[in-house]
Amino acid sequence: MRYKTIYMIKTSQLELQTRGHCDVKDVTAMLQDALGRTGMREGQALVFVSGSTAGVTTVEFEPGLVKDLNEFFQRIIPEGPDYHHHATWGDDNGSSHVRAALLNPSLTIPFKDGRLLLGTWQQIVVVDFDTRPRKRPVVFQFIGE
Amino acid sequence: MRYKTIYMIKTSQLELQTRGHCDVKDVTAMLQDALGRTGMREGQALVFVSGSTAGVTTVEFEPGLVKDLNEFFQRIIPEGPDYHHHATWGDDNGSSHVRAALLNPSLTIPFKDGRLLLGTWQQIVVVDFDTRPRKRPVVFQFIGE
Amino acid sequence: MRYKTIYMIKTSQLELQTRGHCDVKDVTAMLQDALGRTGMREGQALVFVSGSTAGVTTVEFEPGLVKDLNEFFQRIIPEGPDYHHHATWGDDNGSSHVRAALLNPSLTIPFKDGRLLLGTWQQIVVVDFDTRPRKRPVVFQFIGE
Repeated sequence: MRYKTIYMIKTSQLELQTRGHCDVKDVTAMLQDALGRTGMREGQALVFVSGSTAGVTTVEFEPGLVKDLNEFFQRIIPEGPDYHHHATWGDDNGSSHVRAALLNPSLTIPFKDGRLLLGTWQQIVVVDFDTRPRKRPVVFQFIGE
Repeated sequence: MRYKTIYMIKTSQLELQTRGHCDVKDVTAMLQDALGRTGMREGQALVFVSGSTAGVTTVEFEPGLVKDLNEFFQRIIPEGPDYHHHATWGDDNGSSHVRAALLNPSLTIPFKDGRLLLGTWQQIVVVDFDTRPRKRPVVFQFIGE
Repeated sequence: MRYKTIYMIKTSQLELQTRGHCDVKDVTAMLQDALGRTGMREGQALVFVSGSTAGVTTVEFEPGLVKDLNEFFQRIIPEGPDYHHHATWGDDNGSSHVRAALLNPSLTIPFKDGRLLLGTWQQIVVVDFDTRPRKRPVVFQFIGE
């Protein structure tokens, strides 16, 4: 039977404490827990960071790669004074904005049988690029059945 | 009551006039208006650009950052002759394709209470990387209730 | 009549044989075929690669651009020994992980009238960055009606 009529949307908002400067936070367990509480079996989990200086992606979450990501972003979009954005507001986080626009604030992960369909060494991470600690609003939204 | 049975999909297509060369267009108000017209309260808004030389992301939309984004893309993927793509079709927009593949043509934003769950200084932008003005087809699609 | 009550989710998993080293695989026809088999007319197609060394995006799929993408990634995130990740597991694919985190493993494409709303020269590609051939698990998930 292919057609189904019982669907569900569940939206939750949380605050993530971050240190900034390419702080990589693993939210996989939080997302799986939130999915478990919905009782949904099949559908999509959306992770969205409400803010223009952070992004969402997946990575094998281990200290070496966290360092590699930091060095990569510092190399192609260095923190520092050379951004036009600073002239606009007197801010110092032009690099944070450019990095975040590149990484993208949104990630959708499919789930089935109540389980996120991730690879074995694939974790979902929120990366905060701001130049100071933040309480970062993150949205989890599930659509499915 | 967690289970709901009244769902809705609404797809609209529009054309965005762009100048190319990393033209950053803020579509936030257009997307919020389109969402308002659906009457939906909770769900996901998808912004998708139909074309391989443009992308979608979020950014604080102000002239300084628009310049910063331009300089960033010009630095890591410069416009110019040095692309194999040009040999294939005689095109001059190899840089546009590589930039667009990197930025990604798709962005999903959650909404609740009829409002996109964006940060205060977070705008949704379509970035056109082509080397000439375009009428760019953009899809807004809402799934929710 | 705007409200609709017959919705559907369809999830399929496939394995994609890849060669690694920025192997760009066009999955557009496979995705359109899978969509056709669901019978859905309007909604969203999600392509997700389960693994932390590959990504999904769109590109005009032609040999020149495939070379351009390879050279771009080799230039900004070169394959080679200089990654902290290698110290963690004795792996040699630090570059693969950083590239994949940047490109993002997830892409959502809208469809209407049973057709993916892509541009004329826009193909959906899975890019495998690993340093060896892989059988790569890919998820297609359709939500719509």
